[in-house]
Order: sequence, then C-alpha cells, then structure tokens
Amino acid sequence: MNFASDNAYGAWPEMLAALSHANDGAVQSYGDDEITSRVREKFSRAFGREVSVHPVVTGTAANALALATLVPPHGAILCHKESHIARDECGAVEFYTHGAKLVEIEGHGAKLVPQAIETTLKHFQKGFVHHSQPKAVSITQASELGTVYTCEEIAAIAKLAHAHDMKLHMDGARFANALVHLGCTPAEATWQAGVDALSFGATKNGALAAEAVIFFSAEDAADFEYRRKKAGHLLSKMRFVSAQLDACLDNNLWLKRAAHANTLARRMADALAQIPGAELAHLVQSNAIFARLPDATVARLREAGARFYDWEPAEGGRTLIRLVLSFATPEQDVVRFLSIARK
Amino acid sequence: MNFASDNAYGAWPEMLAALSHANDGAVQSYGDDEITSRVREKFSRAFGREVSVHPVVTGTAANALALATLVPPHGAILCHKESHIARDECGAVEFYTHGAKLVEIEGHGAKLVPQAIETTLKHFQKGFVHHSQPKAVSITQASELGTVYTCEEIAAIAKLAHAHDMKLHMDGARFANALVHLGCTPAEATWQAGVDALSFGATKNGALAAEAVIFFSAEDAADFEYRRKKAGHLLSKMRFVSAQLDACLDNNLWLKRAAHANTLARRMADALAQIPGAELAHLVQSNAIFARLPDATVARLREAGARFYDWEPAEGGRTLIRLVLSFATPEQDVVRFLSIARK
Amino acid sequence: MNFASDNAYGAWPEMLAALSHANDGAVQSYGDDEITSRVREKFSRAFGREVSVHPVVTGTAANALALATLVPPHGAILCHKESHIARDECGAVEFYTHGAKLVEIEGHGAKLVPQAIETTLKHFQKGFVHHSQPKAVSITQASELGTVYTCEEIAAIAKLAHAHDMKLHMDGARFANALVHLGCTPAEATWQAGVDALSFGATKNGALAAEAVIFFSAEDAADFEYRRKKAGHLLSKMRFVSAQLDACLDNNLWLKRAAHANTLARRMADALAQIPGAELAHLVQSNAIFARLPDATVARLREAGARFYDWEPAEGGRTLIRLVLSFATPEQDVVRFLSIARK
Amino acid sequence: MNFASDNAYGAWPEMLAALSHANDGAVQSYGDDEITSRVREKFSRAFGREVSVHPVVTGTAANALALATLVPPHGAILCHKESHIARDECGAVEFYTHGAKLVEIEGHGAKLVPQAIETTLKHFQKGFVHHSQPKAVSITQASELGTVYTCEEIAAIAKLAHAHDMKLHMDGARFANALVHLGCTPAEATWQAGVDALSFGATKNGALAAEAVIFFSAEDAADFEYRRKKAGHLLSKMRFVSAQLDACLDNNLWLKRAAHANTLARRMADALAQIPGAELAHLVQSNAIFARLPDATVARLREAGARFYDWEPAEGGRTLIRLVLSFATPEQDVVRFLSIARK
Repeated sequence: MNFASDNAYGAWPEMLAALSHANDGAVQSYGDDEITSRVREKFSRAFGREVSVHPVVTGTAANALALATLVPPHGAILCHKESHIARDECGAVEFYTHGAKLVEIEGHGAKLVPQAIETTLKHFQKGFVHHSQPKAVSITQASELGTVYTCEEIAAIAKLAHAHDMKLHMDGARFANALVHLGCTPAEATWQAGVDALSFGATKNGALAAEAVIFFSAEDAADFEYRRKKAGHLLSKMRFVSAQLDACLDNNLWLKRAAHANTLARRMADALAQIPGAELAHLVQSNAIFARLPDATVARLREAGARFYDWEPAEGGRTLIRLVLSFATPEQDVVRFLSIARK
Repeated sequence: MNFASDNAYGAWPEMLAALSHANDGAVQSYGDDEITSRVREKFSRAFGREVSVHPVVTGTAANALALATLVPPHGAILCHKESHIARDECGAVEFYTHGAKLVEIEGHGAKLVPQAIETTLKHFQKGFVHHSQPKAVSITQASELGTVYTCEEIAAIAKLAHAHDMKLHMDGARFANALVHLGCTPAEATWQAGVDALSFGATKNGALAAEAVIFFSAEDAADFEYRRKKAGHLLSKMRFVSAQLDACLDNNLWLKRAAHANTLARRMADALAQIPGAELAHLVQSNAIFARLPDATVARLREAGARFYDWEPAEGGRTLIRLVLSFATPEQDVVRFLSIARK
Repeated sequence: MNFASDNAYGAWPEMLAALSHANDGAVQSYGDDEITSRVREKFSRAFGREVSVHPVVTGTAANALALATLVPPHGAILCHKESHIARDECGAVEFYTHGAKLVEIEGHGAKLVPQAIETTLKHFQKGFVHHSQPKAVSITQASELGTVYTCEEIAAIAKLAHAHDMKLHMDGARFANALVHLGCTPAEATWQAGVDALSFGATKNGALAAEAVIFFSAEDAADFEYRRKKAGHLLSKMRFVSAQLDACLDNNLWLKRAAHANTLARRMADALAQIPGAELAHLVQSNAIFARLPDATVARLREAGARFYDWEPAEGGRTLIRLVLSFATPEQDVVRFLSIARK
Repeated sequence: MNFASDNAYGAWPEMLAALSHANDGAVQSYGDDEITSRVREKFSRAFGREVSVHPVVTGTAANALALATLVPPHGAILCHKESHIARDECGAVEFYTHGAKLVEIEGHGAKLVPQAIETTLKHFQKGFVHHSQPKAVSITQASELGTVYTCEEIAAIAKLAHAHDMKLHMDGARFANALVHLGCTPAEATWQAGVDALSFGATKNGALAAEAVIFFSAEDAADFEYRRKKAGHLLSKMRFVSAQLDACLDNNLWLKRAAHANTLARRMADALAQIPGAELAHLVQSNAIFARLPDATVARLREAGARFYDWEPAEGGRTLIRLVLSFATPEQDVVRFLSIARK
C-alpha cells in the first residue's frame, strides 16, 4: 500500500519494451538519432504546432534549465509558496539562473490567481536596479495540492504576465493528469492559453526517467542546448530517454495511464469523504488526495503498512495526509486502505 | 561500421534485464531503495574498502559535481590540455565550481607528468589572493588519447598533489578499459595510489546512462548530495540507474566487456600498423586507436560507410583519425574496415 | 530639505582630511599598508577582542560577501521580509552564494523574533536534500523601519540560530545609530550577544564609501579574502578606504555623528506626533521616521521642495512616508519641514 | 624608491580637491547626480560620440562586469596568457560570467596577433554544444608587459573578432599611458578601430579608486546596470567616484599625468640600457620597464630600499625585473636608482 508518491512506482512495460527496441545498432549520440527526431515530430503533432523539444531526466532539471533560459540573473520568478521549485528543489532555480529571485505567493489550492500576482508586482519597481525584475511566472499543472488550472485561468495569468513583460512557465510534472481532468487538447492547455515553456513530465506518469522541456517559440529556446550540456544534462545515449518519451506519446498512452490514476484517486477520495471524521482538504482533480483523517485512523493505516506523507503536523486530533495514486497502484491496495480507514 | 565513439552503441542485454528486474513494485524514491544500497556495498567490495558512492547519468555531471565538491570557487584545477573537462564539457566545471580555473597542461599521450605539474604550480603563488589557488589535479584514465597511467604514475602525481594540498580526481569514463590494461585491482589503481575521487564510467562501457562519483574518504563527499540535488541530478526512480551499476559490477561483467573492446582495439591496431602508409600515433592501451592514414584511404573508408572522427586536419597527405571500439562492435566491422584500408 | 536617505548627504570633513593624510608617499597596495593595519587594531579595540576586519565599499558587497562566506550554495538564510538583502540588493546574496535561498519572515517593525524563526524552521527538514538547509539568520540593526534590537533580543535569536547550527549575521548599515540608541558597547551588541558576522556600515554615517565586514571568529572568515578579490571588491589603494574607517573610529566620531542624527530624528518625530492627522507608524529608535501624514500635507511638503520617500501607496487620505536624518541634515531643514507640515 | 606598481602611489591633489567640491549638499544617490551626468558628457566628448559610461571602483570589477555583459555562460573569451584577467583576478571573469572559459593565447610582448587568434579558433567548433563558444577577445592596452597595440593592430583583431561573431573588449587599466604613446585620439584607439567595450582605468593613473566601463553601443550595455548592482558595485554616494573621473578628464589631465610617467619610464629605460649587463626585455612604450639586471645589481638595489617585482626567477646570473613609473614617482628616485644600478 504505497501512496507516498507516484515516483515510488516503476515504469510501464511499454517503456521497457521501448528501451529494448531502441537498443539496436550504433547511432549518432547526443540526440542526433532517429528516435529523438521522431519524438520531436510527435510532440509537434501532439501540440498542434512546431515546438522546440529538449529531453532531460529529472523534473528539477527541466524546471531549472527552462527558467534559466527565460530569466536573467537579475530577474525574479513569481511562483506559489507551495511550488516544487520553491520548496523541493534545494534552490536549483536560484543556482541555474545565477541568482534570480523566487518570489513566493500564497493562493488557495496551491494555485496562483492574477490578483495575487498583481499585488506582488507592486513591490517591484520596473527598471529600478535595486529590485530583481519580474521576468517570469511559474505555475504547476496539476498543482502540488492536486488541483488543476482551467484553460481560462491559465490564459488570465498569461495575459497578465505578458502585459508585464514576463514569460509564463508551466511545471508539468503531472501535466498528463491535469489534461485528463480538463478534457482539452495539449494546445489549449498550453500555448493557446499563453504558456511559453512547459516542463513536460513523464517520470511520475510511468517513465524510468524522462521529461522534456518544451518551448513554444524557437526564439525562447535560444541557448537552452548549451545550458543543458554545460549542466551535464545532455545524455550521450539520448535515444534511451527519447524512446521513453516516444512510448509515452504513442497511442495516447500518456493520457490513458494518467486517466487510470485520476480515476482511482476520484474513487478513493469519494469513499474517504464518506468516512466519519474524514474530510477532503482540497479538490481532487488529478491523482493526489489531500485528506484530514483522525489521528487514530492514520496510526491504524500506518500500522497496516500503508505509506503516505503527513502534509502538516497533527492538529486537533486530525492529520492532513497526502495520498498519491499512480498508473500502477493496485486497486486492491485502495480497497484495503479504505477498509482499514473505515474501521 | 561505427567507430565514432563507444557511446554510439547501445546497452548490454544484461542492462535491460536489470531494468526489468528493478521494475517490480513500489520502493522508496531518490535512492533510498534496496538496489542502490546493494550497489554501494558492491562498490565497497570491488574497491576493497568503504567508499562513498553517488550515481549520476552523465560523465560531465560526474566530473563537474565531483570537482565542485573538492574545489572552492577560488580554486584552480590542473588538467591536461586535451582533457574532456577542458575541451568537451562546455565549461561545466567552471559552472559547477562557480568560477574555478581550469589550468591546461601539455603532455605526451594526453597524460600529465609530475614535472609538468610542478612547472605549472610555479605560476601560482600560494595564499596570494590574486591567483586562483591550485586545489585539485584531474587526470583521465584511460586518457582521451587511449593511453593509460600506470599505478606508479598515478602515485607520483598523487604524492605531488597532496604535497601541495591538492586533491586528485580521476575522470574514469573509460576506467574499466584502463583497469583491464593494467591488470591490477580497482584499489591499486585508485585510492591505494592516492586518488581522492573517481568518476566511474559505465555508459561508454555499455550502460544506458549510468556513472558513479566515488569518494574514497567520506569527508571529501561532504555536501555532494546537496550539490547533486541542486543540479537536478538526483533521479527520483534512482533504482533504475543503480540497477545498471549493479549489472555492471555483477560477475565482473564491467571488466569482461571492457576487455572485449580492448582486445578488438589491440588486434585492429596491430593490423593497421602493418598497412603501408599507416601509422599509430599513440600507444593503444585501451579501446581507442589514433592512427594516421593516407587521405585516400580515409576517403575510401568513409565512402564505404565507416564512421570515425578526424582528430586533426589532414596534413602532408595523411589524416589522424580516431577509432573507438566498444563492447558491441561487430568483429566483422573490424575485418571489413581493415580490408578496405588495405586496398 | 532632503530626507530621502542618509546617503544623499556627503562625507564628514574629517573623512576628506583623512584621505589627504593618507595620500602621502608610496605604500603597499591591496591592504598591506599601515592605515589598514591600524584600522584592524582599532576595530579590535572597539569590539574588545581580536576581530577579523575586511573593508569594502558598499553595504551590498559587505552583506553578500559575508553571507557567501558563511552559507553554502545549498543553504538558506532566514531574514525579514523587509530586509535590505531581500528587497533592495537585486539578488546579490543569491548571486554571491551561488543560489542559496533567502527565506523571508514577517515581523513587527521589520524585526525578527525567535518564535517566527522557529515556525519557519519547521518547513525545512534537516538533512533532507530537497530542502535548502537553513545556515544563517540575518538581522538588520537598526532595522529598515528604524527600530532597534535590544541586546537581549539579539541574544535570543543567536541562541536559537546556534542551536540549529545557523550563523547569525547582522546587517549594520546603521549600526552606529542602533548602538547610540542602545547605549551599550559594540561588544555587547554583537559577539557577546552571539553575532558571528557584522556588516559594519560607515557610508550612511558619513564616509564616502566605506564598510567593513567583521567576523568575530577567524575560522568563519575562512576564504573571505579570496571571495572579495574574485568579486573585484579588493581595492588596490585600500589605504583610502581604511582611512575612512580610521577617521570613523577616531575619537568615537562614528557614535557622535550617529547620535546627532538620532537626536534630530527624535525631535522631529516628537514634533510630528503633535500635528493633528499625523501619526508615527513605528518606534523612532535611530535616524529614521516612518509617519503617516495627510495627503495634503505630503503634497505641500513636496511642493516646498522636501524630498522623502512614500513608503506605501496613499490609503484613506494619508500616506506613510519615510524621513531619514543624517549627520549633516541642517537643523533649519527640520524646522522648516515641521512648520510646513503644521500649516 | 617604489617602482613596484603605479598603484603604490596615492592620488593627484586635483582628485582630493574634486572630492571636496563634490561634498557639498544633498544629492540623489546611486548615480542620479549632476557630477555623474557631467562625467557621461565628458566621456562622450572625449570619445567623439555618445558612449555608455558606468563607473566602478576596481579594474577587476570593470573587466569582469564588462565581459559578463558581453559573453554568455557558455561563451569563451580569448585573451593573452599573461593578461590580468587570466592571471591576476582570481577567476573573477569565470565567476561573473557564470563559467565562461578564458582561452589563453601566447604572443610576443603580451600582445595578441590575429594569426594566433585564428589558430586558437580552430579548436572550437561553432554551434557544437560540447565546446564553449568564442564570444569575445580581450586585449590589454597598454599590455601587462608595457607594450602598446597600434590602432592598425587593434583594427585587425577587431575585424577578425567581428567576423567570428565575437566582441572586442579592451582592458584599459593603463589606457592613458597607451594613448600618450600612440599620440592618437581616444576614438581612433577604440571604437574607430572596432573596440566594443573598454575598461577605462583611472586608479593606476592617479585616482583613489575610479574606473569606468564604457560601451560604444548602447545595445551592448544591455543589463550592465543590473549586473553592477547585483554585484554590490553600485555605490550610493556615486558622486565621489564620478568626481574622480571628472577630475581625470578635466583639462586633459589624464593624458598629461600619463605622459609624465611615460617620459620618466623612457628616460629610465634608456639609461638602464646603457648599463653593462643590463638589457631591456620588452619595448618600453608606456610606464613600465622590463629589464634583465645582474643579480648583484638587483640585490644592491633592494638593499638600498628600492621596491620592484622580480618578474621571473633568476636565471643565468640575471633577473628579469619590472619597474613601474607613476604620475608621482619622484625624479630623484629614478636618479638614485640609476646611480645605484650603475655602481
């Protein structure tokens, strides 16, 4: 019963098969291979326009390299206080941007809203050299609390960002889960809404280690390739990362597998909500559930071997826990968890 | 007929099998898994002492993170002019160390010798704040020209380095090939000779993407884990990198596969040396051959589909080319190459 | 009528005289001169113990270099949301530390209190590589809102910081003004209370451009000298910076001049508080006044040529303005300002 | 008898007078003052076109900030092996550029020639992400060995640089001395010859601490102001730095004072050349002399109190020493030095 994280699970069988297929023969290294070319085309097709695709192996690398490409050292990046880049990357963005400032903003459900961004911008005087200059907004889709921005919400943020000469970056470690929830196209959820760069995540969705930084304008991609190399993130046998992305996009598997996780999360959340003393803390719109459970229930679940994170310290007899569902979470684990929780 | 690089070839079947085995179930992410623990033990056994092991996915990351851990921003790193860190990593070391200086030294066969290091040190006044302070020597084993340091040569450099308060780093992208040539133990070729940190390469030897930074003193490893995370080089599903290293060390496969490549190189080199007009430019001690061939021969080989790099521009009717043999280079490719070269 | 900043005014006549005296003859450059040696001794005497003194020319350099010496790239620095390092240095600390995180904390009067620090620390898990690791607390004395920490308050913060393996840095751009208010010794207000490093400011107090980074333990100073040089902050004709610090410490002039500014601020604040519709927003404990004045009054003052900053946008018919008094503010300017304000 | 460096001497009386004049009243800080405006105009007049002027206090800061503005982290900067940026700034350029590579080139008299640059460029493949990309050439005028580039030599380098998409930076720590030697206009020696950015030095020529980064195209200056602030190199009481530059340009004093030093150097060099056993090692074209003197002579001079640097270790009974003349070197010191040398 592992609900600790979607990255606690391994990879799709299709991923492993893709690696085997990719293993044939000698090819050009560092991305000048057929699989990588094919992946570029597939991404362009998936997003309904020519996009600039750059595979990497971690979400932290994707976020930090994308933002360093968009934001100068004297820039500031507006993000949610709970965002992964602000809380869980050990200052990777500050390192890669050579000292840009992450400006943390509060917002319900780990989502930013235009008004909060506007209020924040008032603290930064444009052209005033003493202030880091806001150059990007970064949002997480689905968010760190499992909520999802609608396309309209994204568009509103993008409009505001662009009006202030800022780029819009989307941390899409769980982009597939968000897209399934929205039921819209990748295009609608990104560039058509104004997103400039996307960290497209595949690892949490079932790859071994594969993400892609996607720029929707070649101009924005500028010196990304040099930054990736300089950071040691250009893999010599790139075909093996590309093969994972290839399998991901193949036959819409990325969305199907994310849908499975979302569906499981929905069912589990609905059941939990029925349990006396339990309460959902946030909307369940992707594959994560944030629920307050009685401390005794939490203890009983842990005793039974369930793994999950306490999201906040216990308070008033209850604890806010996080449960993450993955493409591979066994249904019986959900059933068992619920049955123990109900006791 | 691909002799361009050992990373042009894919991975051992055992690597793919290891990934499949590693795929079972849910485990702790970020390296707190059984496979990673096992790999640590295996490395300690292989090196005959407790070592500090840190998997990453590229040689550039291994080198840059290792050196950034050993060398402060005001430090200088002495290395060969032809070294990978100096020529082929787009300034990764300068980036990761926050501006340490790479001091390039010349030396036959891409190898450093103590005397050249001593001469170089004279340009740096100890404690003089205007000068970057020499804090490490980095050597490549096997070297970028396929030559191999003997254990005595390493020990002499280490002794000099330590006498000047410098650490000794070894870029071991082709460490296995060097070790096979030396016929000594991993311990003899590293810490017993005075090496402080090793970039242990598995990718060129047949992994998909797996290297390990190894420190021989826990104290030296200090803040490596933070640096790796901050750089986006800590993989969530670490077990898949560790599984490759595990397969590598299993049953001495790493040495057996490297031996295959070395043997092929030896045979190919010997045959080439017999061809009129051909000449070996460097000792063939690992899996790379540097040979001068008549321009017409080079053209004929390329026409027949052989891939390899010109190492220097053509001069005097001949060109210096590099041929790299891998665990997977088909023997018939070698035979065919030689037959075309002989025409 | 310039109340915009203490750095709007020039330098003491004694500073200029000191430069003239320092101008004689040829001396060792880069700080190996008599004046710099003398300054070191004077600081040690002033602080009642051997201290490590490093002159620089700006407060931003002092803060950023001091913190970069104390905090590794993966560190976090806890500071007030209104602090100069967080708001007014364009990310200098993030740049110099190579990506350490500034963690902004709220607190009345721009002061940190132990409880807020403790609450903040809960968000950072010790030894967890995903989190930047809290390595320093930075407080500003006098604060950006003109308030002053008591020695007891400092000691409480230092105790907490040290208990969590953090260093305590003090941004003392207006340290003299704070000290005058406290009426204690430099020792009591710094190392005896647990301060590890002090950015000692002289510029705002009447130097042309002179600050000193002071470490109270030689061990903490470690590689500061290299960092200063590498940043281009080591002046060749150092004697001219040292001469300013020398004049500063001479005959307690630094405290006398700060006392003048404080006294003026006190009188001005008391008079303002009597004006109907005016209100002091913060305690006036150094040389700055934060007052809410009716918008009409503010307009009238500006029209009459008074310079000062609006600290917040106008609200409810009043505006919060900042008035800073300096060693050189003419008394008649204060009188005139008050007379206009009273109309 | 101090011939160790031109920065061993203090400042012109006119500099101190300028500081006194600048001390009146309250002005806008951070460079929004009249003196700074006036300096900008004076520089534009002196250089015969609108230039972008940015005062700083050290040559290292000028060089590093200028180059960081022109060169991205993945860039390479071609410079002479003996250049100040390569040898005497503790890696400041690597730090400020976030890891750009300094490529050291040899050349007679510490001067670069186009052919050597071309040869070097062959090692860097354009657009190849594994190689740092040459983005600037940096030359020193007058050079570290006291030699001076002619305008034609500069133009040839600039032409080559621009043809390869590189900027040309000039380290002009002793620009005045070079200009006096050339007898041409500042315009002819810089932008008319193709220089893109100049580190204009005043400190060695008799300021307390004043340099200016000058860009000849506003576009190149881009984000310089943010970089300067972020590095703590923006002085609050900027007027005092500007006042020094103002005095410098006033009435062509900068050239007159440099001429004095050059003349003294010329006379001293001519006299030295007459001494049996003495030999000039480089052309004396500015205010520095590099001479080989018998070891006994060197010892005698030191015993008599003369200060100067050994430039190379003694060899064959003679030592190469450096003698630097300044605006303030007393003529009698030269006379005395020569008389002792002649004994």
